[in-house]
Amino acid sequence: MTALPQILMAASEALSSHAGDPVAVEALLQAVFGIVVDEAIQKGTSASEKVCEWKEPEELKKLLDLELRSQGESQEQILDRCRAVIRYSVKTGHPRFFNQLFSGLDPHALAGRIITESLNTSQYTYEIAPVFVLMEEEVLRKLRVLVGWSSGDGIFCPGGSISNMYAVNLARYQRYPDCKQRGLRTLPPLALFTSKECHYSIQKGAAFLGLGTDSVRVVKADDRGRMVPEDLERQISMAEAERPWDISGIEDMEQEQLPSFAWTVSTPPVAFLVHGYLLGAGAAIHLSLPDVKGTFGSGAVPFLVSATSGTTVLGAFDPLEAIADVCQRHGLWLHVDGSGKGGGALGGELEEEPLTCLCSTPSRADSVAWNPHKLLAAGLQCSALLLQDTSTWKKASVERVGSDILLTLTQNLLKRCHGSQASYLFQQDKFYDVELDTGDKVVQCGRRVDCLKLWLMWKAQGSQGLERRIDQAFALAR
Amino acid sequence: MTALPQILMAASEALSSHAGDPVAVEALLQAVFGIVVDEAIQKGTSASEKVCEWKEPEELKKLLDLELRSQGESQEQILDRCRAVIRYSVKTGHPRFFNQLFSGLDPHALAGRIITESLNTSQYTYEIAPVFVLMEEEVLRKLRVLVGWSSGDGIFCPGGSISNMYAVNLARYQRYPDCKQRGLRTLPPLALFTSKECHYSIQKGAAFLGLGTDSVRVVKADDRGRMVPEDLERQISMAEAERPWDISGIEDMEQEQLPSFAWTVSTPPVAFLVHGYLLGAGAAIHLSLPDVKGTFGSGAVPFLVSATSGTTVLGAFDPLEAIADVCQRHGLWLHVDGSGKGGGALGGELEEEPLTCLCSTPSRADSVAWNPHKLLAAGLQCSALLLQDTSTWKKASVERVGSDILLTLTQNLLKRCHGSQASYLFQQDKFYDVELDTGDKVVQCGRRVDCLKLWLMWKAQGSQGLERRIDQAFALAR
Ligand SMILES: Cc1ncc(COP(=O)(O)O)c(C=O)c1O
Ligand SMILES: Cc1ncc(COP(=O)(O)O)c(C=O)c1O
Repeated sequence: MTALPQILMAASEALSSHAGDPVAVEALLQAVFGIVVDEAIQKGTSASEKVCEWKEPEELKKLLDLELRSQGESQEQILDRCRAVIRYSVKTGHPRFFNQLFSGLDPHALAGRIITESLNTSQYTYEIAPVFVLMEEEVLRKLRVLVGWSSGDGIFCPGGSISNMYAVNLARYQRYPDCKQRGLRTLPPLALFTSKECHYSIQKGAAFLGLGTDSVRVVKADDRGRMVPEDLERQISMAEAERPWDISGIEDMEQEQLPSFAWTVSTPPVAFLVHGYLLGAGAAIHLSLPDVKGTFGSGAVPFLVSATSGTTVLGAFDPLEAIADVCQRHGLWLHVDGSGKGGGALGGELEEEPLTCLCSTPSRADSVAWNPHKLLAAGLQCSALLLQDTSTWKKASVERVGSDILLTLTQNLLKRCHGSQASYLFQQDKFYDVELDTGDKVVQCGRRVDCLKLWLMWKAQGSQGLERRIDQAFALAR
Repeated sequence: MTALPQILMAASEALSSHAGDPVAVEALLQAVFGIVVDEAIQKGTSASEKVCEWKEPEELKKLLDLELRSQGESQEQILDRCRAVIRYSVKTGHPRFFNQLFSGLDPHALAGRIITESLNTSQYTYEIAPVFVLMEEEVLRKLRVLVGWSSGDGIFCPGGSISNMYAVNLARYQRYPDCKQRGLRTLPPLALFTSKECHYSIQKGAAFLGLGTDSVRVVKADDRGRMVPEDLERQISMAEAERPWDISGIEDMEQEQLPSFAWTVSTPPVAFLVHGYLLGAGAAIHLSLPDVKGTFGSGAVPFLVSATSGTTVLGAFDPLEAIADVCQRHGLWLHVDGSGKGGGALGGELEEEPLTCLCSTPSRADSVAWNPHKLLAAGLQCSALLLQDTSTWKKASVERVGSDILLTLTQNLLKRCHGSQASYLFQQDKFYDVELDTGDKVVQCGRRVDCLKLWLMWKAQGSQGLERRIDQAFALAR
């Protein structure tokens, strides 16, 4: 265990002892579990019961008596409260609960969730979560195999929206590692591309990450909701060619007539910003006319395409092969957002079905966000970000472009991008391989264990069982 | 319920029916619950048992047989797996489990967690989580009352790190609402302030939000780990006065000798960037010497101070009153990070104890991050970001400064900053008050229910019980 100041041990002891006597604890939990089984699981999944006993907010407030008071309540009152909470909640495992985002109750996943809650640990280091650190690694490895990747990395995130943000952050870091320290102000304007049918988390993410929603360039979708690769190509060229200030007439000007963007200093580094766009940066420069034209014409730097496998509203699958071609041509990070209805990843064995593109696999993507808490009903939250180690197969295109910034070496990308090497958690002199301390791969500190529920249901049903389930859902959906 | 395309209903039905027959489901869950009670709860909290049966990674991998295979397994095998997972996991509820971040097992909180998992809903709209939308509102209101605030807003986040990020994002949005759309590139360089003893999530957050870790100015701490307000004041002045380029000799220069930062154009808007710092922006400008001096001297814009109530390593409490004075003078957002050992918020009734500052209340803060999953052992994750509506009491200082950007109107700040108004979830023509659809307050989409476990333990123990518990922990800690 991590060495700790005495003060904390004392505090911990006081709390543990508060848990009360074991017999009472067990009696309470047995009673609550009985209520859960009867009310939430049996009645909650029975077609003859209601999905929800609907009440208007004001009435529900009264019925629940939500107010938190000074005095505690008796065990009987508490059990009544548990019953009321379940009674007035929506039963998401009910056969008539139809939601676009998740539904169904999987008993093995629920079993995994109950164990997770009873163990209540955090997923940062091997010493505090030995089982779950190894389990997460295995589940992620297996998810990568299913999307067709033999190597790579990944992490469980608190939802697909945050997985998508991770992808964007990793892509910009991979291209501009300086960004972590110096921020976006020192970078050229960046552009990312996604279709008009994308999930709103792409916009939310761009705002949160400081890029701004303007950095999201919206690509056309066809009448089935699939991204149009030709329009993607067009949007990329437009972004690249963006001229914040028209300099078409500049050649005809005399040197004296030029606006004074020529700046001669030896040090420190200098840059110009026009219209909010950085025109040049680096060591001190005296811009001659050709330089100026070059910098002026640089526009925004495309860095990522987010394709959606299973769009939120139409369930459309963007044509990944054609999009991957575009990404390869321009050296862009290809992220596949399969956080909505993306079960296609697991259905990878099916033949290509051009009509629906259900089975388009993200084998050429740099990252995939995938939500077992949706189609697989693993339980909220269970969302994986998968990274492919594309260093080998991208080598050719990189050599063509003559640069190495396009190489996606997942090797430690998550840790390099998100890590802070906090010494109080991630000591480097541990007696085991510190690579197992996955906590520094994330922007969180404490992190829930989200892998056990998926692992347990996978063990119980096998890949075959899970695939059958997804195929069945998709077959019904055609 | 939200109207849904037929395709999804079909998919949902297929999955629900997969849950199998109710008798088998109940038998499985009963068996798992029995194991949980015996192994995780009884043995897991008994002083005569081990905290953890420690194994080296390679050995543990073999013992757990983590690999996911094609075939499913029998119920007996699955139950054995459950036992193994518990056996080799750390028992965080064990009386000898000493961790700096969380420990202890609260039976009511665990009961709340089991109900949460069995209901498995998401916290975005009233129609999908009627009970929990109202409950979250009440728990947040009560938490605000405990920190001394009569109005405001708040939200449960996936951990204190993300709560801290929210505070930073809200503060920058409140000052520069444009940032959401246009990104950081159009803003002046920003600076936020925190002590050297702050949690690493402040740095991680600055990187993730695109500000860069350089934007975090580190303020000195005294020998007990508390931020030194005089050094905060000094750091703020330094950031404001930051001169990326020394122009001290500029008055002596002839106009011709001036570096050509004087730029005469009529349109479009123009700005200068030197050393990565924006020197001026807005409509076209011809900078005269005094202008230049003004812009050059503008440096970084301080916008937030993150004080820590209960630092991670030393458990120190930053002197909030003195820090609030500094923030008020400079019009800065005061965030209080109580996500570590911050139980002081609940101990607000205790008298001021200058020696340890344990009871320093964040009554003058704009936001507080507070983690019931730590000291209160509510279970991971349970982390609240609280916002104060400071519009009234800050009015005086705002009028003095003669600007309104300092007003923290929480009124819808979360929604304005994070919202995307996705029509598929947040229809505005609902038959209830859409203010209850809290989903657009967050950067996530699906969001776990994190309030029930805290509410249930609060109901059972009363504010008195919870306060006693915290006081006891702190008393022991002195
Ligand atoms: C395509 C798509 N991506 C991302 C998300 C967000 O996932 P989460 O709710 O896990 O944040 C959704 C949710 O509906 C989605 O449909
Ligand atoms: C002071 C402080 N702030 C924030 C955090 C992060 O909280 P969380 O682990 O919930 O992300 C911690 C965790 O140790 C902390 O000590």
